[in-house]
Amino acid sequence: MTESTSHAPPDVDRLLDARDLETLKGVLAAMPQSDVASLLAERSEADQVILFRLLDKDRAIEVFEQLDVDQQRRLLEGFTEERAREVIASLDPDDRARLLDELPAKVAKRLLQALPPAAREATATLLGYPEQTAGRIMTPEYVDLRATMTAGEALARIRAIGLDRETIYTCFVVDATRHLLGTVSLKDLVLAPPGALVAGLMTPNPVSARTEDDQEEVARLLSRHDLLAVPILDREGRLVGIVTVDDVVDVLEAEATEDIYRMGAVETGDASYFRAGIGSAVRQRIGWLLLLLATNTLTSQIISSQADLLTVSVVLAAFIPLLTASGGNVGAQSSTVVIRGLAVQELSWKRAPATLLREGAVGLLIGLALGALAFGWAAWLSGSLAVAAVVGGTLVVVTTLASLTGTLLPLVFARLGLDPALMSTPFITTVVDVVGVLLYFAMARVVLERLH
Amino acid sequence: MTESTSHAPPDVDRLLDARDLETLKGVLAAMPQSDVASLLAERSEADQVILFRLLDKDRAIEVFEQLDVDQQRRLLEGFTEERAREVIASLDPDDRARLLDELPAKVAKRLLQALPPAAREATATLLGYPEQTAGRIMTPEYVDLRATMTAGEALARIRAIGLDRETIYTCFVVDATRHLLGTVSLKDLVLAPPGALVAGLMTPNPVSARTEDDQEEVARLLSRHDLLAVPILDREGRLVGIVTVDDVVDVLEAEATEDIYRMGAVETGDASYFRAGIGSAVRQRIGWLLLLLATNTLTSQIISSQADLLTVSVVLAAFIPLLTASGGNVGAQSSTVVIRGLAVQELSWKRAPATLLREGAVGLLIGLALGALAFGWAAWLSGSLAVAAVVGGTLVVVTTLASLTGTLLPLVFARLGLDPALMSTPFITTVVDVVGVLLYFAMARVVLERLH
Repeated sequence: MTESTSHAPPDVDRLLDARDLETLKGVLAAMPQSDVASLLAERSEADQVILFRLLDKDRAIEVFEQLDVDQQRRLLEGFTEERAREVIASLDPDDRARLLDELPAKVAKRLLQALPPAAREATATLLGYPEQTAGRIMTPEYVDLRATMTAGEALARIRAIGLDRETIYTCFVVDATRHLLGTVSLKDLVLAPPGALVAGLMTPNPVSARTEDDQEEVARLLSRHDLLAVPILDREGRLVGIVTVDDVVDVLEAEATEDIYRMGAVETGDASYFRAGIGSAVRQRIGWLLLLLATNTLTSQIISSQADLLTVSVVLAAFIPLLTASGGNVGAQSSTVVIRGLAVQELSWKRAPATLLREGAVGLLIGLALGALAFGWAAWLSGSLAVAAVVGGTLVVVTTLASLTGTLLPLVFARLGLDPALMSTPFITTVVDVVGVLLYFAMARVVLERLH
Repeated sequence: MTESTSHAPPDVDRLLDARDLETLKGVLAAMPQSDVASLLAERSEADQVILFRLLDKDRAIEVFEQLDVDQQRRLLEGFTEERAREVIASLDPDDRARLLDELPAKVAKRLLQALPPAAREATATLLGYPEQTAGRIMTPEYVDLRATMTAGEALARIRAIGLDRETIYTCFVVDATRHLLGTVSLKDLVLAPPGALVAGLMTPNPVSARTEDDQEEVARLLSRHDLLAVPILDREGRLVGIVTVDDVVDVLEAEATEDIYRMGAVETGDASYFRAGIGSAVRQRIGWLLLLLATNTLTSQIISSQADLLTVSVVLAAFIPLLTASGGNVGAQSSTVVIRGLAVQELSWKRAPATLLREGAVGLLIGLALGALAFGWAAWLSGSLAVAAVVGGTLVVVTTLASLTGTLLPLVFARLGLDPALMSTPFITTVVDVVGVLLYFAMARVVLERLH
């Protein structure tokens, strides 16, 4: 990696401490804007405001746009009302909508009212769409062309209006009522003879999405079709905006984080987990833990109901964590691969029977291997072949059931239209705990009572 | 989502079954190519070969390029040697290198030798870089310009050579020795007066990466700087290729899958988990399970060494799974947020002390809540306040330790240059199991022996 990728060159810290703002201004001016953004993100709020003031106006906006919404919000709080209005007005409509959404309603309303009428209208429109939809992340700043233009006329229009548009690499061909007829790339316009008609150069019936579509679906659409921008249509099929490729990674990473958090039984909050307060972190975690604790009261109830058996053969207790942990781990593995398979659309309900069969077979094979080892270990530790047989046998059955449970639950959740990642590793583990303990004592009772 | 995003229209199945290939050919010709690719991906190998033959030549190559390497490999196996050579020769050098990599060495060598000399050389060069590096995913097909050209001359060159290049939207300005001087966007060239010099339009010292850089780093670089393409330099700083934005999502999704799999204690294999054979699936999972089973022999050893205590108070056994499960869940939550935080570069070693402090506090607060509830439950179930105190007290300590362990281990792994995701949820859970059981009996011995 070249030097341009390393964050926060050490002299920034030194210059900040020394309050040598003149030199610092020069250092910042020489850095790529996204490195300035990373650098800002790592500082305290007070330092952020100082650093931000040292940027020239155009650059300040560009850097501001690269910060995440959370950082933008906190930076705004350090600005004067006038500076805040200025920054807000210079943002792209989609970025502005996302930021206003995060501010207290009263502040957002005041800032919105201070905008020029056109900007206010564009932002208010975007704010009208539900969160996490295409309508919310699209921008109305696209290049529109007519099918009857020549390539030369189209290029002239792009030269005239292109500077203000989010992208000029994909242009959108509409009719008089703004219905989308096709898309044409700047590449095709540049490579074509100047007299060629846009109608002949455009891709008719292009891939498109609706304002109400989920942002993750739209991101996957762009990625799957290798597009630089996708047109967004309203219910009447009129072009109202575009989503560009630079939003795709942010959207997919946010969705991956949400999945990963859920798989770890953590709820996603409004802000990043690490930037949120301790109270908020506890709230993101306690819900699932309480549910899992309640579920686990079942294991203690089951075990305490077997006090007679445990009194006879106290060594049985020694293998409980080994059995539940191994079963839990296998279940966690299955749910991990299934949840991920569903997320990247490699698995679907249609393949559920084949997947269950396969994961059942994998679980059984793994169970036989682990069961044989556990049998040996239990025989050595307890000195009883009967106890060893119960431990080994339970492990084979629990492992197979765990593999099936870890596969089935996320598939069923997906089928019901719920997020399969809600079937988190801790949840599967806890379910397997209960089943495992139940099976263990049932098997122990059969085997050991036959012996005694 | 519009109709263009739904896979496999039902009549394809019907037409395939009826072997009505003439009609099918028309249906395929009218579908977007990425939908044809998705449709192919869902069929049996025999159907894939049939469907593929119905595509016209240019389209066949485009569809082939959109399949994943695994699907490409299996499709190639159904082709004649001549057809395989034809398809391989038409691929972009980077796609070709990735595919040849997956084929048996003998087959790859034979196909490589059948290529035209220029294509053979380009592919052999890419194959010389280690897997998962920028060198492997870059393409040598970029537009190179000179700083002394005018915008008009540059556009003329783009018109002349652009059709064969992976992108024309970012062009690369080099000197006579191919050292990179800057980048210039097609947007700037189109919007500039035709007489303007490229030297004045280009961004000097652009963001770049080296051939040996990790592909994930390069993908994040593109995403962070919102670039459409990033130049890749050799050790001498000469431009040798570019990585384009359409590779970013694939790379980041593959890396996210690897992370998620590791977090679930599953190793990633050569092929997709669900396409690999059962034996391969078992191999991807058994390694971690054996290690975790070995670790868990400790819990059974600890418990069996406490047989005297358990004989006196058999109800102690009833709370073991509840304690280990709750501790494990809290540890899983901490490792989940920390591993993800490290992956998206929101956390770093520099913030380790603050993060540990915070997660310790969160763990303690959660432990107090869960401990109070567990105390109540244990008092009711066991009828003994002493046992309840041991259960509640252990839970508070275990939860706090679990939160700290789940935070510390991934941070230390990252610091050592290892993948933090190796500190999987099952691994953390198992470590917490051992510690939890140890603490539980230590505490029980102190409290209960004082009473008896």
